[in-house]
Amino acid sequence: MTPRTGVWLVGARGSVATTTVVGAAALRAGLLPPTGCVSALPAFDGLPLPRFDALVFGGHDVAGTDLPKRADQLARAGVIPGGLPELLREELLAADAEIRPGADAADHRVPGDAVDALAADLVDFRARNRLDRVVVVNVATTEARPRAHRAWESWRELRGQLRRETPPGEEVLPSSSLYACAALLAGCPYVDFTPSVGVRVPALAELAVERRLPYAGNDGKTGETLVKSALAPMFAHRALRVSSWSGTNLLGGGDGAALADPERAASKSGSKARVLRAALGHPVDGGVHIHHVPQLGEWKTAWDHITFDGFLGTRMTMQFTWQGCDSALAAPLVLDLARFTALAHAEGVHGPVAELAFFFKDPLGTEEHALERQFGALVDWAQGLGTVR
Amino acid sequence: MTPRTGVWLVGARGSVATTTVVGAAALRAGLLPPTGCVSALPAFDGLPLPRFDALVFGGHDVAGTDLPKRADQLARAGVIPGGLPELLREELLAADAEIRPGADAADHRVPGDAVDALAADLVDFRARNRLDRVVVVNVATTEARPRAHRAWESWRELRGQLRRETPPGEEVLPSSSLYACAALLAGCPYVDFTPSVGVRVPALAELAVERRLPYAGNDGKTGETLVKSALAPMFAHRALRVSSWSGTNLLGGGDGAALADPERAASKSGSKARVLRAALGHPVDGGVHIHHVPQLGEWKTAWDHITFDGFLGTRMTMQFTWQGCDSALAAPLVLDLARFTALAHAEGVHGPVAELAFFFKDPLGTEEHALERQFGALVDWAQGLGTVR
Amino acid sequence: MTPRTGVWLVGARGSVATTTVVGAAALRAGLLPPTGCVSALPAFDGLPLPRFDALVFGGHDVAGTDLPKRADQLARAGVIPGGLPELLREELLAADAEIRPGADAADHRVPGDAVDALAADLVDFRARNRLDRVVVVNVATTEARPRAHRAWESWRELRGQLRRETPPGEEVLPSSSLYACAALLAGCPYVDFTPSVGVRVPALAELAVERRLPYAGNDGKTGETLVKSALAPMFAHRALRVSSWSGTNLLGGGDGAALADPERAASKSGSKARVLRAALGHPVDGGVHIHHVPQLGEWKTAWDHITFDGFLGTRMTMQFTWQGCDSALAAPLVLDLARFTALAHAEGVHGPVAELAFFFKDPLGTEEHALERQFGALVDWAQGLGTVR
Amino acid sequence: MTPRTGVWLVGARGSVATTTVVGAAALRAGLLPPTGCVSALPAFDGLPLPRFDALVFGGHDVAGTDLPKRADQLARAGVIPGGLPELLREELLAADAEIRPGADAADHRVPGDAVDALAADLVDFRARNRLDRVVVVNVATTEARPRAHRAWESWRELRGQLRRETPPGEEVLPSSSLYACAALLAGCPYVDFTPSVGVRVPALAELAVERRLPYAGNDGKTGETLVKSALAPMFAHRALRVSSWSGTNLLGGGDGAALADPERAASKSGSKARVLRAALGHPVDGGVHIHHVPQLGEWKTAWDHITFDGFLGTRMTMQFTWQGCDSALAAPLVLDLARFTALAHAEGVHGPVAELAFFFKDPLGTEEHALERQFGALVDWAQGLGTVR
Repeated sequence: MTPRTGVWLVGARGSVATTTVVGAAALRAGLLPPTGCVSALPAFDGLPLPRFDALVFGGHDVAGTDLPKRADQLARAGVIPGGLPELLREELLAADAEIRPGADAADHRVPGDAVDALAADLVDFRARNRLDRVVVVNVATTEARPRAHRAWESWRELRGQLRRETPPGEEVLPSSSLYACAALLAGCPYVDFTPSVGVRVPALAELAVERRLPYAGNDGKTGETLVKSALAPMFAHRALRVSSWSGTNLLGGGDGAALADPERAASKSGSKARVLRAALGHPVDGGVHIHHVPQLGEWKTAWDHITFDGFLGTRMTMQFTWQGCDSALAAPLVLDLARFTALAHAEGVHGPVAELAFFFKDPLGTEEHALERQFGALVDWAQGLGTVR
Repeated sequence: MTPRTGVWLVGARGSVATTTVVGAAALRAGLLPPTGCVSALPAFDGLPLPRFDALVFGGHDVAGTDLPKRADQLARAGVIPGGLPELLREELLAADAEIRPGADAADHRVPGDAVDALAADLVDFRARNRLDRVVVVNVATTEARPRAHRAWESWRELRGQLRRETPPGEEVLPSSSLYACAALLAGCPYVDFTPSVGVRVPALAELAVERRLPYAGNDGKTGETLVKSALAPMFAHRALRVSSWSGTNLLGGGDGAALADPERAASKSGSKARVLRAALGHPVDGGVHIHHVPQLGEWKTAWDHITFDGFLGTRMTMQFTWQGCDSALAAPLVLDLARFTALAHAEGVHGPVAELAFFFKDPLGTEEHALERQFGALVDWAQGLGTVR
Repeated sequence: MTPRTGVWLVGARGSVATTTVVGAAALRAGLLPPTGCVSALPAFDGLPLPRFDALVFGGHDVAGTDLPKRADQLARAGVIPGGLPELLREELLAADAEIRPGADAADHRVPGDAVDALAADLVDFRARNRLDRVVVVNVATTEARPRAHRAWESWRELRGQLRRETPPGEEVLPSSSLYACAALLAGCPYVDFTPSVGVRVPALAELAVERRLPYAGNDGKTGETLVKSALAPMFAHRALRVSSWSGTNLLGGGDGAALADPERAASKSGSKARVLRAALGHPVDGGVHIHHVPQLGEWKTAWDHITFDGFLGTRMTMQFTWQGCDSALAAPLVLDLARFTALAHAEGVHGPVAELAFFFKDPLGTEEHALERQFGALVDWAQGLGTVR
Repeated sequence: MTPRTGVWLVGARGSVATTTVVGAAALRAGLLPPTGCVSALPAFDGLPLPRFDALVFGGHDVAGTDLPKRADQLARAGVIPGGLPELLREELLAADAEIRPGADAADHRVPGDAVDALAADLVDFRARNRLDRVVVVNVATTEARPRAHRAWESWRELRGQLRRETPPGEEVLPSSSLYACAALLAGCPYVDFTPSVGVRVPALAELAVERRLPYAGNDGKTGETLVKSALAPMFAHRALRVSSWSGTNLLGGGDGAALADPERAASKSGSKARVLRAALGHPVDGGVHIHHVPQLGEWKTAWDHITFDGFLGTRMTMQFTWQGCDSALAAPLVLDLARFTALAHAEGVHGPVAELAFFFKDPLGTEEHALERQFGALVDWAQGLGTVR
């Protein structure tokens, strides 16, 4: 029997999460092909990945609008086909029934209490649905970058600190890390699809290894950065010197609003910039800019302007635009990450899974940013895991 | 002592050839870094490639304007830096002195006579300059696609046919193949940087193997197709279904005028189209269009418009423009091909060199069109050759 | 009481016609604002234009799919909002009931018989619906450009010729002109939204004046050419010399298929090219290219690449892309043209209405192609007509 | 005899000023046609404008690099043709000899002293060169937006304040206004090609009227905003509702560096934004963003992304890029403004010259931002002035 796998979404009523749940239900019903799902490529045929119809969804969210309503909104915005929310209403309601109110770091004077509550939700979900395992995926809004806390350095110190009352104005862990901590304590692998800190705290990395749990992140590579990671190696391998690369991102909707906040944008722009330096081997003029344009709704358009010098210094220019729907790009990758991470967990892999770098702007455990080499590494790794079994 | 290598350019006074000769002289003089030269990347350090300053240039051309004048024209067009032609005048004159009038298939009733004359030019060049070897590179204007001749099937038949008078209205071999045949008979490796037939005649392939000579082609991948071969695998590996990919190329100058002729454009568009089908695994709506815009001079701009379907069928769009100078893109690759092919010849490689696919729109001896895998194959091959030695 | 005006659409089940009928019904029902309707701008407030809810639709078409079904197709293609066809079903059926099979020039040996049948349909429609007047608007697929017939020179000659049997292989009038002739004989103003010949036959122009009927055309200016007519004067008035202007149009759907036929494309590209020459005062390199990309469906994307020389000859570049839905751009202009032409007819205007040039790529009766001056002329003319009354 | 007119450039060794002086000398020598000069269009033939060869240049600048050297730099950057600086060396040296060190507001405790020194330079220049008049044009770097001073309200108050010592940390007038004040006191018309405050202080406006001097500004419309002012009326007159318009400007060189400073960028973005609101009649999502990319040197590229709603709310998209050389776009307009303003002065026009709005992002004395109407107003005004004479 195929193992039953839980997918626990932090930010479970957001656009990405809703599209993920709708999509998985549509795949299960055979209504649509798995377009955009990397794990459905022939390269991964025959691997013991959990099947799309063996995924069970739940999650945390503070928002109250239920999944059927969110799906209706996305259908009106052109993200998902018109009739789908109605057809899949039962399954959306089932997933919605597994959503619990999230925890905000600010809600608890003793942060360990928040962690305990979150972990209990995970344990209950796993038991109630008789799941072999639960993969926690963070698809919540990007956080502002927090200041590091002295207790981050070791799990021993952090564990102690979590049990104490936090003085006003101080924060031991940001929300994303509370969720990551809860996931690990509940024995669940953790994937961060956002640029938030999450498990990137030495104490939590230590905890993951101790509990023999795999984790992966950060920041799903869905648009402009995806293209960058395909194009930058082209310039490098043709010995064309890139002299400037300016990226401009126009974002609507929730993500745009969050990233209009300069502190949150800093998290995002940082992970976007690393790709170029890694692929080209030198810093490049230009930068990455994010502008909020509410009228774009669920859509985003990126424009990249690249100048490069060819033979004898001749200056040339490449430009591209990418007009995409963020949720439709992200959702199939969330399914992929849940499947690959579940396989990793089943096979005893633990610590950062560098071979999932293909999916991330800022991959954990590796400096490899070139898309094709990332894909090769993913295929080799997955096929290796499958063969061992 | 480093081996002295001749580079014999068919179309030796064209823009690509002139830029190649100017560039090699500038590199030799230490005036500029080898930007755009793949063979100068660290991956190829330590290989016994002929050094840039050990390359000696000659070639065939029917045009009468000498290289210093052509270089002046290119400087005014912004292809090469202003002062360079003056600084390198001596070396341009030296290369120009090694240019011989080419042969046109129509000039000789007995095509073998033309081949003999061309081959004699090569043998003389090699002897006069005491060269270890001469690599012939075709950078002439794209030919109209010829009709296949019955004598193409075997070298035995072709050899006989070349000695007979050709009846009016018939053509045994197009010009590019006369040059290829002459190169092989003179013991020279042959590289085709154009989409012309050249060595792609079974009889000539047979001859190359018989004489143990390497050859490579066709159609240098310098702009739009280069980008395609980097981007198409991205869509494939992300399981995004490309529904249309329309390419439009605005070309000025000589190349544009030639390709305004639909018969020549057919050669070009054909090799441009193969990349997509190979990378995506299915045919795609859209096509490749070439338009001549004389005012663009030595420059070209390509616009590609790509629609693709993501998760749940959501339609998205990517567009890119590439504004480049054809000669500045092509010239360093001509140097690379001369160097790599010289190495192959020195190491006893013969027949089509599939590992040079990285440089071509329509590579001989392989179906691999994905840029990064082509680069990997090139590095492995070159390092293998180097090690053997 | 507001005058009741008939709008008779040639090509009444095409995408443009269907969108026009759906849109008028939606406006009448107050479901949506008149976005895209020029005649609804404040500049035209208070003029005795027929009201949107006083328009009655009918037309000719050879296609059998009824309007409600066509509206469903357009809703699925994203041209019109999802729920609209259902809400407006009654009105679509009413319009569909007024559609008659069209006439093909090839159907009748005596072309006058075809004209009579078409004119009778118009007279019946007007009488049956008690309309003050009927404006005929041609929104059928672009025809191939016909050869001029000797009888085109005068109405006297043409009238005689129409009564004779046409020898096989000859054509007296193309379909568009049969419709124009029928309109005039039935006392109806005629508007050509396509580049077809229509009323542009001297004999028919003569007939229109004789019957004191206004007419207008040709070829609705909805996308790339609209932008051209706004931008070209900018270059001219800034004394910037445009050296090349290359337009590429990617079209899906029916229009794209028709224009993939080079003979039909010739009609279209011709009218697209005139704008530039008129605005810039000199011919320009580049041309207009139309490529058919079926996957684009009802959508089109144009890319224009413009090079221009500034002070001291410095070469600069402007590019634009226009991603539009042809039917959604055309339909409100069809309503505008019906309204303005009805007003002209009511006011006794006859012959070509040059003041409607604002709407056309290839305006009749004027050489003015600059958009802003066209708009000024339209406002002045309409306000003049209104005031007289 | 044609009147001799002085052109006094504030920022006389900047890129715009240098290109202006080089260009005027090239026109005088008959080396190049007056491409980009509006005042050379046929519409202005026969007007008593000062001839290009009757312009005499001088100016203020704090920079020490002389004009011949600056011209060499611009030739290397591709802004002006290669041989030109050498050919025009004499004239560049002559203009350079008329450059005086500028004044910084911070240099003088009594601001009136600075004004007196500047005015004296103007008076000397006029006398020494026997000029009929001198037009002062500010082409210096954009200033940070200053705080308004209480003395701005009337000339009487300002005059008094200028004579007093300014306490530390306070500023009576920014530099641009010191120059404007000096111009007016010396009896010279003043044009502001930058978004700096300049004459836009009520006290100075009062002074200009009192001295019967014309003035114009602000912020030369050379690129993105020029296109906006041509396109926005197109959307408005077609009743297409623009829902977002996002502009991104990548600037190299000096201008880019200055505008990387958010306080200066505020001046610029403000004037860029007004165009849209005025033309469309409603505020629009999106904004104008300026990013500094030093590698672009003297060049700039703007990308504008526009979404608009057509009939029945269908969302469509237009995008444009503008790749221009700022100095080559600005310099001919500086000549135009000098010529038109000299004519205005000769004809007794005083106060803000609203009819010069065609040249500015933020025109003084009018709310008209639509390019074609601005051009019409300019033509009518100039022809009117000419006729009077």
